[in-house]
Amino acid sequence: MSELRFDPIRRRWSIIATERRFRPHEFRRPEGDPPGDVSGCPFEYGNEHTTPPEIFAIAAGPRQPNGPNWHVRVVPNKFPALGIEGELTRQGVGIYDRVNGIGAHEVIIETPHHLRCAADLSVSELALVLRAWRERIIDLRKDIRIRYVLLFKNHGKEAGASLYHPHSQLIATPIIPTVVVEELNIAREHWGHKERCIFCDMIAQERAFGDRVALETDRFILLEPFASSFPFETWLLPKQHSHDFALCNDQMLESLAAVIRDFLRRIRTLLADPPYNLILHTAPSSHPRPGQPRYWTTIEYDFHWHLEFIPRITRIAGFEWGSGYAINPTPPEEAARFLREVTVEEP
Amino acid sequence: MSELRFDPIRRRWSIIATERRFRPHEFRRPEGDPPGDVSGCPFEYGNEHTTPPEIFAIAAGPRQPNGPNWHVRVVPNKFPALGIEGELTRQGVGIYDRVNGIGAHEVIIETPHHLRCAADLSVSELALVLRAWRERIIDLRKDIRIRYVLLFKNHGKEAGASLYHPHSQLIATPIIPTVVVEELNIAREHWGHKERCIFCDMIAQERAFGDRVALETDRFILLEPFASSFPFETWLLPKQHSHDFALCNDQMLESLAAVIRDFLRRIRTLLADPPYNLILHTAPSSHPRPGQPRYWTTIEYDFHWHLEFIPRITRIAGFEWGSGYAINPTPPEEAARFLREVTVEEP
Repeated sequence: MSELRFDPIRRRWSIIATERRFRPHEFRRPEGDPPGDVSGCPFEYGNEHTTPPEIFAIAAGPRQPNGPNWHVRVVPNKFPALGIEGELTRQGVGIYDRVNGIGAHEVIIETPHHLRCAADLSVSELALVLRAWRERIIDLRKDIRIRYVLLFKNHGKEAGASLYHPHSQLIATPIIPTVVVEELNIAREHWGHKERCIFCDMIAQERAFGDRVALETDRFILLEPFASSFPFETWLLPKQHSHDFALCNDQMLESLAAVIRDFLRRIRTLLADPPYNLILHTAPSSHPRPGQPRYWTTIEYDFHWHLEFIPRITRIAGFEWGSGYAINPTPPEEAARFLREVTVEEP
Repeated sequence: MSELRFDPIRRRWSIIATERRFRPHEFRRPEGDPPGDVSGCPFEYGNEHTTPPEIFAIAAGPRQPNGPNWHVRVVPNKFPALGIEGELTRQGVGIYDRVNGIGAHEVIIETPHHLRCAADLSVSELALVLRAWRERIIDLRKDIRIRYVLLFKNHGKEAGASLYHPHSQLIATPIIPTVVVEELNIAREHWGHKERCIFCDMIAQERAFGDRVALETDRFILLEPFASSFPFETWLLPKQHSHDFALCNDQMLESLAAVIRDFLRRIRTLLADPPYNLILHTAPSSHPRPGQPRYWTTIEYDFHWHLEFIPRITRIAGFEWGSGYAINPTPPEEAARFLREVTVEEP
């Protein structure tokens, strides 16, 4: 069984994922499957029986679970980092802490078509993927053991995708991840001082400056953050304040799909289909029980959901690990200008 | 000119390194030079004139600066992330902050021989490299603008090395990096409560448990940390408490070189010469001036210098970026056992 472990010096958790255990020689060939291997792909249309039984699907017509005729399928990860069965236990071990590996690890298969990546989907197809994200978050939050549902997409091998077929993933954790805790604390502190959302403040300032705005629609804004860690790092935020992605209605998801699609196509043209990570930052589960950290006291006002996009075109090296900050060779103002001005090539 | 920028939401700095500016098409071929290109290598014996003028060298006999006859040379990085010239200015920009890119970025050329990587050097050759590290730290700390000297080694392309010739680097920064600040704060807080060093506590506990000890000599211990983020992540600590690597005498550096060499050869055999990062964590510069954060109040007692080794054999993906913690498929107890039991193959 996997477990979560806490390091008292770095004050960080790691997941020791024994389901995915590797022996040293297995690290010698870190490459995954070649992109073109359609017939053996477990996510392919017609191969539904090769995945663990599906959890959720958006049907394309009348269908049986684990049968064909679908737009989007959600299945458990075959090598889960965390498992859904069992009781949550928290334990001290000398100066250390551990929590057993309770949670969920699911794969959202975005399309039946092996070679149609997210940028190739139509707006309404992409909106269905976002609907699957929303429905899985809402469902998993009902589990009192789950503190956070982290949704992310790895595109390309260098970004961590081990299968080519377009998919996103979620990992639901029994602790709120460090990055999320830090963001929640900072947002709440800002609200505590000013009764303003720090993200709304940033949006207002970036709209006034203008030079780091990559794209803007009536509902969304895409920014190259002032202190971007990576070239073409991009944050996508709703312009109207909202703390929780799961509150988006279908119309909002359709608008979001349109702007994501436009952005991904610009990036694909500019950077020649780079590997990337796309990560949803949204509110944690709120189970108002005594003894739990009460992140939700002002969360509706102080937190602002958003997506973070990281193209994986620069390498993380010793300096980045040792310092916690990055050396970014592309000023965000230049990246924003390239994104605004690019003419999308159809592949 | 480069600049450091602070993100108020993540509370992290980035270096926007305009000296290294890239345009989008340049990201399409991220690979560096092929390993075997000896004649064109600027770090090669006989090519001394192709580097910027040297800052420091350990001579192998009578020599002129920038001439041959050396064991180790230290030169400025040709594309520095930070530059040494100018006055340090700190400026607010709306809700953001920036500091101009003052600092230093140097390369420690570890050997005249292109193909002799750190694991191939003799103990006394490797000790000379460590002496160069120590001398450069001591020298750069005299500069009142410098807050921290971060020493690191990138081995292999996937670990960020753009040149094959064995080298380490240092980046001296006008702010104390986030990772270091966090470690210093945690160590000081632990001391404040307990009047014990948190690292000494960890060493005592790990020696009692035993199963995460990879190697131990009379002076040093190598541990696979309890909450390892990566397979075969290893911390190397002096067993006798010391806050500052720069206080090591030559005899201590000789012992350190011996244990690093043994460890690197074990890793090379186990993981087939993996790319890796090796990072020195030591005390920051101490310029006791009014208005500066006084990290040095109890630092001699509370902080404990060490090296962190990260083999780059797993990928950082969306989950890691979104959560701040890692999924590690190799329990540290197994990694330690492999390291203890491996028989080193001579290449």
